[in-house]
Amino acid sequence: MTVSIVGAGPGDPGLVTVRALELVRACEVLVYDRLVSLELVMEATGAARIARDGLTQEDVNDLLVHHGRRGRNVVRLKGGDPFVFGRGAEEVEALAAAGVPYEVVPGVSTLTALPGLAGIPLTSRGVAAQVTVLTATSADGGDLDYAHLAATPGTLVIFMGLKRLAHVADGLILAGRSVGEGAAVVSRLSLPDCEVRTGTLGTIAAVADGLRQPAVAVIGDVVRYADVRALAALSSS
Amino acid sequence: MTVSIVGAGPGDPGLVTVRALELVRACEVLVYDRLVSLELVMEATGAARIARDGLTQEDVNDLLVHHGRRGRNVVRLKGGDPFVFGRGAEEVEALAAAGVPYEVVPGVSTLTALPGLAGIPLTSRGVAAQVTVLTATSADGGDLDYAHLAATPGTLVIFMGLKRLAHVADGLILAGRSVGEGAAVVSRLSLPDCEVRTGTLGTIAAVADGLRQPAVAVIGDVVRYADVRALAALSSS
Repeated sequence: MTVSIVGAGPGDPGLVTVRALELVRACEVLVYDRLVSLELVMEATGAARIARDGLTQEDVNDLLVHHGRRGRNVVRLKGGDPFVFGRGAEEVEALAAAGVPYEVVPGVSTLTALPGLAGIPLTSRGVAAQVTVLTATSADGGDLDYAHLAATPGTLVIFMGLKRLAHVADGLILAGRSVGEGAAVVSRLSLPDCEVRTGTLGTIAAVADGLRQPAVAVIGDVVRYADVRALAALSSS
Repeated sequence: MTVSIVGAGPGDPGLVTVRALELVRACEVLVYDRLVSLELVMEATGAARIARDGLTQEDVNDLLVHHGRRGRNVVRLKGGDPFVFGRGAEEVEALAAAGVPYEVVPGVSTLTALPGLAGIPLTSRGVAAQVTVLTATSADGGDLDYAHLAATPGTLVIFMGLKRLAHVADGLILAGRSVGEGAAVVSRLSLPDCEVRTGTLGTIAAVADGLRQPAVAVIGDVVRYADVRALAALSSS
């Protein structure tokens, strides 16, 4: 294996997988996202460490292919999971097209860490049986189909820039979702400065003002069942 | 911390988190799911190891509260992620109600490991922008709302018993989803005997016949974009 596309988990270095840590420690070239913990980056003691910040996606693809072709052990370390809106697929495609062998190591996604770490269940008996996961733009890069989303039962989890939050909340309300429906924003999950704020679809943009990236929005009645104990534990830890 | 609710990842022992492995190695009581790798269970060298198999959920809750109250280091090791339909919430509630301190360690979920390990993207530019995750029964334990699901855009990921597959596929088709829509079943993801079979909504129940649990179904056009190279790597590894 020359190039490994590796999920670093949501931020806490303890939430990286055993296989990921093994690969980071042994690699010769490390290309890492801005949101990956410095502690983890520092484990790549013998490696050339390249920050992804400031590079285009094409630059990253070229870097991976370049070093991979030379048979170097390359780790591409990505925040969360590489494929949950992580653009891991584009890197895999570039490697495959160049005939460079690769391995994928999935990581703990922010999505699945939400219930345990932020105390917000994604499903709950009698409240929500399904979860819909999306970004703040549609498949073709345009606006979301708010009419469809307004009629979608269960919980919505939106990976987004915080700047889009007011726009998305307005879109959902105008399309018929209740202004009083529960909404939460979780900022920097699993990191020491993690913050969870809850409100309604009508208030969430104002409530979330000032939160830092990365953030994820949760919309649905499950927010009302957010575990206050977990939130307390989170803010005191 | 006395009781830790820990995700073991999809099965491959390398996909457990560093924190999970640390807790397993140090625990005094280990309560583990059937689908957790034996290799990982064996890391709990000093612990009383209790298989969850054959216990009711109430038995498990009682066990955790019993040992937790006595201040023992208890690890509840669950397949995948504890909260993605993993009933981790019920155990957390039992511990909270009993006043036993607990910690949650999220794991790599089958959901997020699907694209990297089975070569099936969950979203794809211009094809699917959202993912809907559900089980084969609704929030109140009844049948799914097939009319709603038939109109839901994007990819459906269904955590289910394989026995329900024909029923769910029929329900979706009768509600208007195309009989020719792509469908896949991934059995035992990340384990050495992992198998991925693809077909259409009309054929998938027959195609998946004989696959072993645990399994997850993916329905949507993204199945057509399944990476044949990834599938080949999977079956040869």
